[in-house]
Amino acid sequence: MKKRKVAILGAAGTVGQRFVQLLANHPWFEVTALTGSARTVNRKYEEVCNWVLHGDIPSSIRNMTMLETSPGIDAEIVFSALPSKEAKQAEISFARAGHQVFSNASAHRMGEDVPLIIPEVNADHAELVNYQRQQRKWSGCLVTSCNCTSTGLTISLKPLLDAFGIQRVFAVSLQALSGAGYPGVPSIDLIDNIVPYIGGEEEKIEIESRKMLGDLTNNQINYADFTVSAHANRVPVVDGHTVCVSIELEEPATPEQAVAAFEAFQPPEMVRALPSTPSKTILVRQEPDRPQPRRDRHAGKGMTTTIGRVRPDPNFHLRYVVLSHNTVKGAAGGSLQNAELLVEKGII
Amino acid sequence: MKKRKVAILGAAGTVGQRFVQLLANHPWFEVTALTGSARTVNRKYEEVCNWVLHGDIPSSIRNMTMLETSPGIDAEIVFSALPSKEAKQAEISFARAGHQVFSNASAHRMGEDVPLIIPEVNADHAELVNYQRQQRKWSGCLVTSCNCTSTGLTISLKPLLDAFGIQRVFAVSLQALSGAGYPGVPSIDLIDNIVPYIGGEEEKIEIESRKMLGDLTNNQINYADFTVSAHANRVPVVDGHTVCVSIELEEPATPEQAVAAFEAFQPPEMVRALPSTPSKTILVRQEPDRPQPRRDRHAGKGMTTTIGRVRPDPNFHLRYVVLSHNTVKGAAGGSLQNAELLVEKGII
Amino acid sequence: MKKRKVAILGAAGTVGQRFVQLLANHPWFEVTALTGSARTVNRKYEEVCNWVLHGDIPSSIRNMTMLETSPGIDAEIVFSALPSKEAKQAEISFARAGHQVFSNASAHRMGEDVPLIIPEVNADHAELVNYQRQQRKWSGCLVTSCNCTSTGLTISLKPLLDAFGIQRVFAVSLQALSGAGYPGVPSIDLIDNIVPYIGGEEEKIEIESRKMLGDLTNNQINYADFTVSAHANRVPVVDGHTVCVSIELEEPATPEQAVAAFEAFQPPEMVRALPSTPSKTILVRQEPDRPQPRRDRHAGKGMTTTIGRVRPDPNFHLRYVVLSHNTVKGAAGGSLQNAELLVEKGII
Amino acid sequence: MKKRKVAILGAAGTVGQRFVQLLANHPWFEVTALTGSARTVNRKYEEVCNWVLHGDIPSSIRNMTMLETSPGIDAEIVFSALPSKEAKQAEISFARAGHQVFSNASAHRMGEDVPLIIPEVNADHAELVNYQRQQRKWSGCLVTSCNCTSTGLTISLKPLLDAFGIQRVFAVSLQALSGAGYPGVPSIDLIDNIVPYIGGEEEKIEIESRKMLGDLTNNQINYADFTVSAHANRVPVVDGHTVCVSIELEEPATPEQAVAAFEAFQPPEMVRALPSTPSKTILVRQEPDRPQPRRDRHAGKGMTTTIGRVRPDPNFHLRYVVLSHNTVKGAAGGSLQNAELLVEKGII
Repeated sequence: MKKRKVAILGAAGTVGQRFVQLLANHPWFEVTALTGSARTVNRKYEEVCNWVLHGDIPSSIRNMTMLETSPGIDAEIVFSALPSKEAKQAEISFARAGHQVFSNASAHRMGEDVPLIIPEVNADHAELVNYQRQQRKWSGCLVTSCNCTSTGLTISLKPLLDAFGIQRVFAVSLQALSGAGYPGVPSIDLIDNIVPYIGGEEEKIEIESRKMLGDLTNNQINYADFTVSAHANRVPVVDGHTVCVSIELEEPATPEQAVAAFEAFQPPEMVRALPSTPSKTILVRQEPDRPQPRRDRHAGKGMTTTIGRVRPDPNFHLRYVVLSHNTVKGAAGGSLQNAELLVEKGII
Repeated sequence: MKKRKVAILGAAGTVGQRFVQLLANHPWFEVTALTGSARTVNRKYEEVCNWVLHGDIPSSIRNMTMLETSPGIDAEIVFSALPSKEAKQAEISFARAGHQVFSNASAHRMGEDVPLIIPEVNADHAELVNYQRQQRKWSGCLVTSCNCTSTGLTISLKPLLDAFGIQRVFAVSLQALSGAGYPGVPSIDLIDNIVPYIGGEEEKIEIESRKMLGDLTNNQINYADFTVSAHANRVPVVDGHTVCVSIELEEPATPEQAVAAFEAFQPPEMVRALPSTPSKTILVRQEPDRPQPRRDRHAGKGMTTTIGRVRPDPNFHLRYVVLSHNTVKGAAGGSLQNAELLVEKGII
Repeated sequence: MKKRKVAILGAAGTVGQRFVQLLANHPWFEVTALTGSARTVNRKYEEVCNWVLHGDIPSSIRNMTMLETSPGIDAEIVFSALPSKEAKQAEISFARAGHQVFSNASAHRMGEDVPLIIPEVNADHAELVNYQRQQRKWSGCLVTSCNCTSTGLTISLKPLLDAFGIQRVFAVSLQALSGAGYPGVPSIDLIDNIVPYIGGEEEKIEIESRKMLGDLTNNQINYADFTVSAHANRVPVVDGHTVCVSIELEEPATPEQAVAAFEAFQPPEMVRALPSTPSKTILVRQEPDRPQPRRDRHAGKGMTTTIGRVRPDPNFHLRYVVLSHNTVKGAAGGSLQNAELLVEKGII
Repeated sequence: MKKRKVAILGAAGTVGQRFVQLLANHPWFEVTALTGSARTVNRKYEEVCNWVLHGDIPSSIRNMTMLETSPGIDAEIVFSALPSKEAKQAEISFARAGHQVFSNASAHRMGEDVPLIIPEVNADHAELVNYQRQQRKWSGCLVTSCNCTSTGLTISLKPLLDAFGIQRVFAVSLQALSGAGYPGVPSIDLIDNIVPYIGGEEEKIEIESRKMLGDLTNNQINYADFTVSAHANRVPVVDGHTVCVSIELEEPATPEQAVAAFEAFQPPEMVRALPSTPSKTILVRQEPDRPQPRRDRHAGKGMTTTIGRVRPDPNFHLRYVVLSHNTVKGAAGGSLQNAELLVEKGII
């Protein structure tokens, strides 16, 4: 199979770097273009990139020349790691120009005809692309992946929603710093300290899970009918978002029933076949003190969601802790998997 | 006024050290005895103590000789910084022998005739001591202070309970490590990591606030009638417990009304007069990202509770963040203030 | 005594904040002007300042209006917490306009007629101001304080130079992050990490100690005749620079002799009388694992230098560890003490 | 090829866990026995092990039954991750009983007939085993690997010694906490803090490099003729020891010459063929701020030594920073590679 040509928009940032890393040896995709800010254009990737991940820049990418972020670059598929402000215009112009855009930015997530997808949760929402193309008269498309904290939370909610129904959710996050980019959070804010606030984060957590867990009917997404209260905190952890969840179900369930639902969970067969889908969507740990970010974020190469401490809740029905790798499954890895899904479905 | 003689049980541990520090220049109390484990007996305090606080051991204490932890030491008032297991027997034997015991341990907090006191919240529960002495035929007494995470939470609940009534509470803690003693939490668990579990902590948080906010009638405490769901997390912060709270009230209240209640809150006049009572019980911060442990734990010399981010809650009525210094107000400072209260009330 | 009017240039930055904190209740000085960047001018201090220190902005300062950083402000004495680039021009223009400038910036430290002073080390260099005024035809003056890592190192070298002579010095620093300002070092560089490089730092450490320990003769400073090799590292510590030192003396000395020299060290009587001079210039600790930044940086309210682990060196003569508070003694506190010195000497 | 049977002594500790991880899919070795303290004997590995590494216990090991640490277990080769005290007796008794013992403990490193080996540095010292067996009348043997901080330092010294000769070395370490085992260093010592002392460490760093860089002649090792001054510091880093080095050579060399020597360095061909030998022994980085522990410790899967900041030294000739993974190359990986070396040489 000939590999499809892909570009990374905003390739030098922290999420852009994850795209570079995850795409380095991808079986279906080949990086043919990298874009960046004016400062970086026409320079080599390795010169403009302050590489913050383990090891080195993949050798196939190191010497690529940075391009301007504008349509017409030699790539069918475009991964956007742009800041949200910049993404707003740029992603539209790429999709209009016929590129298949997979965005990690928040700018268009709430668009009515824009699918917001976690393949294991709502692969069927990908069909919204047909409507989007028709409405907007695009040959390209725009598909978004969700906020890094919404990712693990939504995956954990999916089996519970299916089995028991959900009414109310409390979600308190302890979020890693890598999601804030570079330079991101000053160290003076995170040494002997935590910050109980992340601008705009709680609003995203409260709405995105409801969109992804909603029904797509007649080209319209009916948001899932539950409410979420989110408290977002920044903690001195490099990678891996931990979320403490309390949940009110429609039908009561015991912790054992919830664990059974988590462990039985399987995404649709088409999703299981994608190169980036991990062998386990959800891993349930039995130790009393897990998941922990440094110890569990690498599960399934960062694509598995880990759940632990499933126990009854005095106010609602259940409590648990869920952990997801914020820059792999919760960012670049998620967008990449979305592109794989649309390829597999034949939409792109 | 002649100062009262006080002893510190378990004086070499981390909470013991805070007692030493806070009692160093106390206007009413004078340290006359320090006790410790067999290993430490007959040795100088400075030899057996791995001092972990700022600066040095107070010079008046440095050369004191460690005694065995058993009644008969030369001290009317006894502050217990013993581990809970040891406290169980020892505190009873001290109280029986006529010492006035103020304990920071959890062993007896739930005892029916044992007051669990935060002076600003339930100074009136001190009267239970009379019943305790009568029942147990003690001339001494046993008064407890609460868990370090219960402290800030309960203080924040008090004005809300008084003004609006409370039905349900979610409380997710991000706890400092100093409460775990020395050596306490291994650094390998808290560098680039958090631990979403602290053994026994959630149970304490869920019950203690209800006891302290209960009514004392006919020598019996009727627990406050609300439920608490707690999630306890350990984070890499030296001092200062942060708690994210969502709360369902009996009568709805806006964030502005809640802030007004917090700001108007005043403890009884007798409590305001105690040497360890801070000028402000509750400090409300308006910045979007406060309180933060390193920046706010020293408010009121560690005796003030700081509240911020008061906002509506999608599931319940209100959300906010509360911060309290876990080894000052939440441990040694709290017990010390309890002793001051009983002196002021003439009970001891 | 009427207090002298002082201004703080760059008052909203991290060093500026320390000046604000230390000057809040100063017996000789009164803050009458605060300056800042264009963005801040005409706004209240509390609005433009992201206060990163403990507690709150002093109430006397909170509502002061920020001014432009240019001469003519109502202040005799001017403390400069400007970035080095900006300091270069600005400090000259203030001194020329008749202000007495005490700078914490590196821009002019190496100037031939600019004294670089630690009062305990080289109070006599203050006399160079007379020559400076004469040469430059200024009524004002420009006096500098040294780099935050040079501070503790130089203080530790002074008694050794006096007693034994010095030939070669190795100095490896483990530096706190507060010196890098705000936002300063990104947290992604300092969680589970250290950075073995601080731009321009090693050069300063290698030369400044030699200037301060030099002789002032005929209006010229003859640099002390030893060499320093510095390795600068950034570590995840909020405040307090630790330096590992190995030293080759002119006359061999035992650790005991060195400790005796450290402990006997006294600054000149005039210096001892300054309000900011700590009771002990050097505190020697005997524990095998001290000094440590969090435990020792507050010695003498951040103005005392702590030394420990004095032991023989296999290559040279002695090894030891020295710790100094980088934003108190090593920055704002040091400049403040310099101003006090010039007042006491009657130079200003 | 039939795999050789190997045992891990002290398999549940942090170094033991690294052995388990690195041996999981080893081409030559197969784990047939795990030993531990009395508490663990007869229990499954997964029950007794608080696994602190990424991911999970390898499935082939998880259910193995822990054995007593005494000779006679079914394993030809024995890797010792015992604490030094326990290692002293145990390793002797295993070697005497015919096991081939590869120890990571310090107990016997200085033994006259005990080789202390880093294969890239002194593979020839392996021959000392013949003399050892003859002297002690053993069919087994005892081979040691060096202290985790000596590892990177010694590897960096080897090319310089060969090319220019060495006279004096200063080595200041910033050491990760994983080497201290579990629970190891309390987090209260490493949050907003560093500890400028590690008991016994400096002595090891000062002598071990000289033994490994010495000549083996007539069954005797003549220690290399230079002196080392070490300062050991503990910093809040999980894995990866950083060492700041200043070095006096016999023949002066420029940084460029030193870099050329580092880059040209190749271990003997036999060593290059070992399964655990990385493709690059030394990786020189050109960035001004590297190596850094979190970013460079994984080089060569933790077996490559990274060097950076090679520059002139004002006192001696050269300065540089060297980084090595302390529990891979500096512990379990190093011992494993030693065993491979002796297999390849036909000694075992």
